[in-house]
Amino acid sequence: MPNEKKKVSAITSMETDFARWYTDVCTKADLIDYSSVRGCMIIRPYGYAIWENMQHILDSKFKATGHENVYMPLFIPESLLQKEKDHVEGFAPEVAWVTHGGSELLPERLCVRPTSETLFCEHYANIIKSYRDLPKLYNQWCSVVRWEKTTRPFLRSREFLWQEGHTMHATAAEAIEETERMLNIYADFHENELAIPVVKGRKTDSDKFAGAEATYAIEAMMHDGKSLQAGTSHYFGDGFARAFDITYTDRENKLVHPFQTSWGVTTRMIGGVIMTHGDDNGLVLPPAIAPIQVVVIPVAQHKEGVLEAAKALADRLSAVCRVKLDDSDNSPGWKYAEYEMKGVPVRIELGPRDIEASQCVVATRHDGEKETVSLEGIEKTVTEKLEAVRAGLYAKALANREARTYRCRSIDEIIECRKEHGDGFIKLMWCGDPHCEEEIKEKTGVTSRCIPFEQEHFDDKCACCGRPAAEMVYFAVAY
Amino acid sequence: MPNEKKKVSAITSMETDFARWYTDVCTKADLIDYSSVRGCMIIRPYGYAIWENMQHILDSKFKATGHENVYMPLFIPESLLQKEKDHVEGFAPEVAWVTHGGSELLPERLCVRPTSETLFCEHYANIIKSYRDLPKLYNQWCSVVRWEKTTRPFLRSREFLWQEGHTMHATAAEAIEETERMLNIYADFHENELAIPVVKGRKTDSDKFAGAEATYAIEAMMHDGKSLQAGTSHYFGDGFARAFDITYTDRENKLVHPFQTSWGVTTRMIGGVIMTHGDDNGLVLPPAIAPIQVVVIPVAQHKEGVLEAAKALADRLSAVCRVKLDDSDNSPGWKYAEYEMKGVPVRIELGPRDIEASQCVVATRHDGEKETVSLEGIEKTVTEKLEAVRAGLYAKALANREARTYRCRSIDEIIECRKEHGDGFIKLMWCGDPHCEEEIKEKTGVTSRCIPFEQEHFDDKCACCGRPAAEMVYFAVAY
Repeated sequence: MPNEKKKVSAITSMETDFARWYTDVCTKADLIDYSSVRGCMIIRPYGYAIWENMQHILDSKFKATGHENVYMPLFIPESLLQKEKDHVEGFAPEVAWVTHGGSELLPERLCVRPTSETLFCEHYANIIKSYRDLPKLYNQWCSVVRWEKTTRPFLRSREFLWQEGHTMHATAAEAIEETERMLNIYADFHENELAIPVVKGRKTDSDKFAGAEATYAIEAMMHDGKSLQAGTSHYFGDGFARAFDITYTDRENKLVHPFQTSWGVTTRMIGGVIMTHGDDNGLVLPPAIAPIQVVVIPVAQHKEGVLEAAKALADRLSAVCRVKLDDSDNSPGWKYAEYEMKGVPVRIELGPRDIEASQCVVATRHDGEKETVSLEGIEKTVTEKLEAVRAGLYAKALANREARTYRCRSIDEIIECRKEHGDGFIKLMWCGDPHCEEEIKEKTGVTSRCIPFEQEHFDDKCACCGRPAAEMVYFAVAY
Repeated sequence: MPNEKKKVSAITSMETDFARWYTDVCTKADLIDYSSVRGCMIIRPYGYAIWENMQHILDSKFKATGHENVYMPLFIPESLLQKEKDHVEGFAPEVAWVTHGGSELLPERLCVRPTSETLFCEHYANIIKSYRDLPKLYNQWCSVVRWEKTTRPFLRSREFLWQEGHTMHATAAEAIEETERMLNIYADFHENELAIPVVKGRKTDSDKFAGAEATYAIEAMMHDGKSLQAGTSHYFGDGFARAFDITYTDRENKLVHPFQTSWGVTTRMIGGVIMTHGDDNGLVLPPAIAPIQVVVIPVAQHKEGVLEAAKALADRLSAVCRVKLDDSDNSPGWKYAEYEMKGVPVRIELGPRDIEASQCVVATRHDGEKETVSLEGIEKTVTEKLEAVRAGLYAKALANREARTYRCRSIDEIIECRKEHGDGFIKLMWCGDPHCEEEIKEKTGVTSRCIPFEQEHFDDKCACCGRPAAEMVYFAVAY
């Protein structure tokens, strides 16, 4: 079986080359493949199943908070993209332009949507007339295109899958509340389902979404100490509403502008899962999004009764988890390596002696532990194991983040800290001046990630200029 | 409430102008909106919820038959599209071309996928090596673009949503079996869930998919007697496999080509539902895909206990169906018209006297019937009603089709038939010569729809040329 052997061939170790380890995992765990379309990726069944699980959980949370799904066109006419000044400046340099339909030159160029604020605004101008029409809580699952120079699977590709929420509200307060609500949904999803601890905060002005008044984000620390912006939620005020002439008649019969938000997460989250939990044996998946939560592997499956018992066990477990029985003729050792590579959280081994003793061996992927347990009540045992995996993954990721978070009081301290510890989160006091932000970046290589909601006051002076500083900001090297 | 009044304003009647009735329903039932993107549509929440229900049912059927979802890039490089001769000839005239990324001219034009055979083939060439890798049963949910001149919501738009299955098999027989299996899944979905009777058959050579050896289709008769191609399933033989150099090592260790299929249904199905079941009061939805299956409308809701009782009733029903309580301050009459327009299958009215008598009024949308029933066992009553709605819709559609299906033996008979009866399905005996097919089209305006699997032999001679004819073919005016 030369074809199958290849699958479990060694991957580059994280220590040797983290970037190469990452792409090795992406391809060896069958998450993606490349094609002749440069900068775009093929998401293979195993990778797409992870995305479907993410979608399913998030979509339920969106619907439970009153959001409705819609579908807007893939294209945006150039004149429509130009309606909001900051927005077009931010996006025009990185859009793909359609110039011909068949052999005909189009009267106006169309860009492939990089994001859909402009389309939603045009539609909202049509359908919002009265305070009775508010709020409008729309969401869209789709793909978007941004013509990036340097690409990496899931993290930065010319096309990616995402959801984009776009909402309109009667008041600024309601819109701000929505912005925060959605950021919290993203944060809870990361912490509870993906087992990824996140820092919630506000972006500095230099890092805001093009056209937004305020951008909120969740930042997660990857295994290598770098930061991943894992989700964003934007408050627009009434800027787009003014640019697109969206008005409604309020309760006092006055014509006013509504207030707007947008928020999104992408297939980038899969990259976050890989880089937070993965190890030198491959992918490690949190149970909530694992396509296979438990794999049952028969040992000495040629012996009488083994396959039947393994099948019966898998059937029982299918009531409580996503379970797969692997009864292929590959060796148990090959199978162990294969499902380790694919990050299946729990593996169950069942051989003739186990069957006789009415027990099985339960191995957990994230810590390599093995335990012999009774088949009686196995459903409960497995359910508890899966929860323990989640908790274990979260604790490990949190410990990594805490071990690699530093406080620095000056540019020299940052340089020293980076020399000694490498990448990590650096907490700095900042005066609020964008020049200081820029200077820190230039001199140390770290960029501001966010001004965390959970503030900490460990100095009075800006780490850059020494002037009074009221805000603590996270800096890091970012993906 | 001037804004709300508009919603239930009259729509064009079917008799007056069927095409205008159709677009009226699309907009007045809040299914779609237009935008500045010509030829594309916005699918609004109510329309998109119908699509999500369709997706959910079909996706389960695909997965139950072993298919896996994947995601391929949105773009196809021009050179890749050109690899299969017939395919590029069929699609190149109607694709949208991307020429620039940001301000840079691309080294090669990319088209926005009109369908993804070429991308799947390139990927399959990478991942299929051995007979152990077969079959590959992949499916993709996405949007595709075809630069149509004349567009209509759902029926023909420049961008539409669909699923495209692409499978590879070791033998021709297996691939043909897959082609038929998927056509049957489409047919069953139409008949059972959408309550639309369909004719299953094979397309004539002139109407095959670009690059296919055989195209199978389901054809449905719309209320106006025209035909809608509602789903297609293609058998490719090994043509693409040869063009893309896809080979595998078989059990005898020989290098051979696999055999291929593709199959798809689109948002066009929503158009089919509208034109099959709709009436002059608006949309009529089959329960399986209705976003709201039952609407509960309190009567005299200001009276004590009415709203509470209506809420309790809706809560009970939520266990067996998708139910909505409308407790807004619009009048019951306004609400009746609104949910009729939106095609909600069952309406329940509950007023003070009903509550006293422990009963409610159940009205069914498709036949306008009203019945007073006991609140006791209302869950069962409603479940039965929904099934009766499905059966009633199907019977009505089938009766329409049967009443408008004709047998003709010559071109003169076709002309006569069309003069007397207008649009409908015309059964003809055909010799198999494409010239006859063309001549029939030119002289009578109907085109061949399919050679039905269920054949009927009512003459020995071709209706066009009089030569011996073995096959019966459906002709009609098609959407």
